[in-house]
Amino acid sequence: MDKFMDAAIEEARKGRAENGIPIGSVLVLDGKIVARGHNQRIQKGSAVLHAEMDCLENAGRLTAADYKRSTLYSTLSPCDMCSGAVLLYGIPKVVIGENKTFQGPEEYVKSRGVELIVLDSQECKELMNELISTKPELWNEDIGE
Amino acid sequence: MDKFMDAAIEEARKGRAENGIPIGSVLVLDGKIVARGHNQRIQKGSAVLHAEMDCLENAGRLTAADYKRSTLYSTLSPCDMCSGAVLLYGIPKVVIGENKTFQGPEEYVKSRGVELIVLDSQECKELMNELISTKPELWNEDIGE
Repeated sequence: MDKFMDAAIEEARKGRAENGIPIGSVLVLDGKIVARGHNQRIQKGSAVLHAEMDCLENAGRLTAADYKRSTLYSTLSPCDMCSGAVLLYGIPKVVIGENKTFQGPEEYVKSRGVELIVLDSQECKELMNELISTKPELWNEDIGE
Repeated sequence: MDKFMDAAIEEARKGRAENGIPIGSVLVLDGKIVARGHNQRIQKGSAVLHAEMDCLENAGRLTAADYKRSTLYSTLSPCDMCSGAVLLYGIPKVVIGENKTFQGPEEYVKSRGVELIVLDSQECKELMNELISTKPELWNEDIGE
């Protein structure tokens, strides 16, 4: 449906193959992917490396000017933390695979001037539904529940 | 003024001694420090390890029940990203060294039910004022400006 979302889904599948949480993200700048990431809770025992955070970390230290013309792709609606990272860096646009299995603070993020596009991807929902049905306790941990 | 804030300041000073951004944080659970951290932008080339995030990362994978009775201390008012992490994990209380040199989305965080206590620490302000006057470009990078 979208080559950048396809790349984020590829990251989510990598996470699943590592027995991790299947959420992926890519950061796009000037029409090119400059960083990729996926949730690292299992792989690195990480409490902060959600897919979007892993992607931003892998992007390294960018300038404000870079962030301000970038687009972040995520297979799932960004949580409070990842939404906060978007706001911190002034990333103007986020493309979201789906927001049915989980929804972050989308209205607040939009009220702060960020454009959100939700693709409602069946593939993204299937990845999450599989996780939620087979490892509910892991998913709850990842969203602080 | 507060032994836990003193520990956060100690972390900030470690960061300064490493030529990093002098912001520190500790996480307190049941009256004990369970994790410490400081900003890792310089040290690890990190875009996501603000002091509070480094502290939460060093705490490892905690249960929701643990987060929900914890207190996060930070020498500086948490930015959008770090505030978002507090909201994600349902940390009920944040003690802030100062919010004069920088202020995160405190009203929003309070509206989401988090108790914020601002100590207005001279020591914390001095650490930040020194950074802002000597390395303004580094500080701007850290807050996406």
